[in-house]
Amino acid sequence: MSTRIDFSAAGELLRNAEDIYILCHQSPDGDTLGCGFALWNSLRLMGKRAKVLCSDGIPERYSFLSDGYCDEDFPPKYIVAVDIADTKLFGDELSVYADKVQLCIDHHVSNMEYADKLLLEPNAAAACETMYMMLKNSGFPIDNMVAKCLYTGLATDSGCFRFESTTPRTHTIAAELMEYDIGYAGINRRLFDIKSRARITAEQRVLSDMEFYFDGKCAMIALTTELISEAGLDPVEFDGLASVPMQIEGVEVGVTIKQRNENTFKISLRSGEYVNVSEICASLGGGGHIRAAGCLLHGTLDEVKKTLAERIGKAL
Amino acid sequence: MSTRIDFSAAGELLRNAEDIYILCHQSPDGDTLGCGFALWNSLRLMGKRAKVLCSDGIPERYSFLSDGYCDEDFPPKYIVAVDIADTKLFGDELSVYADKVQLCIDHHVSNMEYADKLLLEPNAAAACETMYMMLKNSGFPIDNMVAKCLYTGLATDSGCFRFESTTPRTHTIAAELMEYDIGYAGINRRLFDIKSRARITAEQRVLSDMEFYFDGKCAMIALTTELISEAGLDPVEFDGLASVPMQIEGVEVGVTIKQRNENTFKISLRSGEYVNVSEICASLGGGGHIRAAGCLLHGTLDEVKKTLAERIGKAL
Repeated sequence: MSTRIDFSAAGELLRNAEDIYILCHQSPDGDTLGCGFALWNSLRLMGKRAKVLCSDGIPERYSFLSDGYCDEDFPPKYIVAVDIADTKLFGDELSVYADKVQLCIDHHVSNMEYADKLLLEPNAAAACETMYMMLKNSGFPIDNMVAKCLYTGLATDSGCFRFESTTPRTHTIAAELMEYDIGYAGINRRLFDIKSRARITAEQRVLSDMEFYFDGKCAMIALTTELISEAGLDPVEFDGLASVPMQIEGVEVGVTIKQRNENTFKISLRSGEYVNVSEICASLGGGGHIRAAGCLLHGTLDEVKKTLAERIGKAL
Repeated sequence: MSTRIDFSAAGELLRNAEDIYILCHQSPDGDTLGCGFALWNSLRLMGKRAKVLCSDGIPERYSFLSDGYCDEDFPPKYIVAVDIADTKLFGDELSVYADKVQLCIDHHVSNMEYADKLLLEPNAAAACETMYMMLKNSGFPIDNMVAKCLYTGLATDSGCFRFESTTPRTHTIAAELMEYDIGYAGINRRLFDIKSRARITAEQRVLSDMEFYFDGKCAMIALTTELISEAGLDPVEFDGLASVPMQIEGVEVGVTIKQRNENTFKISLRSGEYVNVSEICASLGGGGHIRAAGCLLHGTLDEVKKTLAERIGKAL
């Protein structure tokens, strides 16, 4: 169990910390990276030495978040995890730090409380929302780059302010961050609009193979290793596909099945208005948010689909 | 030429008005309808008789905006146009009011000043943003329904806060409107995510027929009457397709050509970061915003494509 702390206590800990490692979760997205690089930039402006670590590489889509980052080698005196709900999400390279995290800043209700101190806001639309509140509350420096990183996390996790997780505070923070020179329209195009021509081809194929269950209330797509390699795409490019089933009229639960290896599949569940997909994923050993959650399943593709259809059928 | 007025002058005019007609532009979108029904609801709460008029029917996507609306027959004593830049956009049915508009509330820099009084905010992301400022400034009643209508216009015209037209004020207003019970996640799903299966089929066909010019900096799609009728879709459903060319990596100018009849085509231009499409469209007799504009062209499809390619080539 972690000790729960508030913005100012977290700020106090960071103000007193030196040689700080900032850990981001594996398969990094705009929120964990936005949080990590925002904190790095702010700490640097305070003259501190810090380092952002992630078990996986930074996807091209988010590469601008590391603009101006300089990676230094030093042993950590203080370890912070950002947007990481569970040590399982540390990935191979960072797993050595699993029991050494002094502070975790997160917004997942499913946070496993692995860190010594925990600043958790389960109602924040993004970890970057909590990070901004902490930085602002503690009077930490915020420049254009910090603002750009935080806006990116906010936009990423709120679906650009579309999802139910968005609150008035999310918008208020966006308004405050837009007072900096962040080029938000370019960020949003990069995050939400732009797709490679290969991705569009893959998307077309996935759409034509989509399966429907329960009178069209559930739509399922499968990204098999065969499809991924045929399309010649970085698996990261497939991330946005998790929202595709939800785009179909009448769909309440959208399922994306991504093949990891022959008998392992990463499942992403999204829901529209009433199904709690966090519960479904938790019952399968995963977790997440009410409208967006995930888990890992083993078996053949058909077995995995059958298991999911059963659980989803009950929830519908 | 119109007399330019501010929020409180516009509020004063409406406070003294009775039997009000509220005009929306043809091919109505979420901003003109949101504006119209927001004003109608607020005037009703003040005990006034009002009526929302539009030359075209309300698309299914926006049908919720007229929830609770009661249409009454009465002659107008005061006529307001919302989000209509030009009397050309009144459509057939409303054209009789073209020279009778007492007040226009708009955000298009290209407003033709056809109304007696004009409340124009060319930097507002949506006409609903200006409408909200006017209602709030004048102390007009705002209830859940008014807030829902205004949020819808705000989200529609800002691309859910993605486009460059979004300002800190846009976000601040969204935050204020979300304090009402508006079901914003459902609205956003309806506006931005949900597509019929027929629309998705049509989209796939359009994508595979897409043409690229100038090293892929310009992408063009054509929605011919043949394609529209084959897909069996209401032309309104195609509106979202205007953003499709902009989704392709490297595209700066996206062109959507929609066939009206054999030799008439409605053109939508979108740009990413530097091309002023409003200028291109103005040179072809149309208008709009810097990053989103339109015009009407006559000729064969090939001639129209050639004309557009020439103008766009120069601008690139």
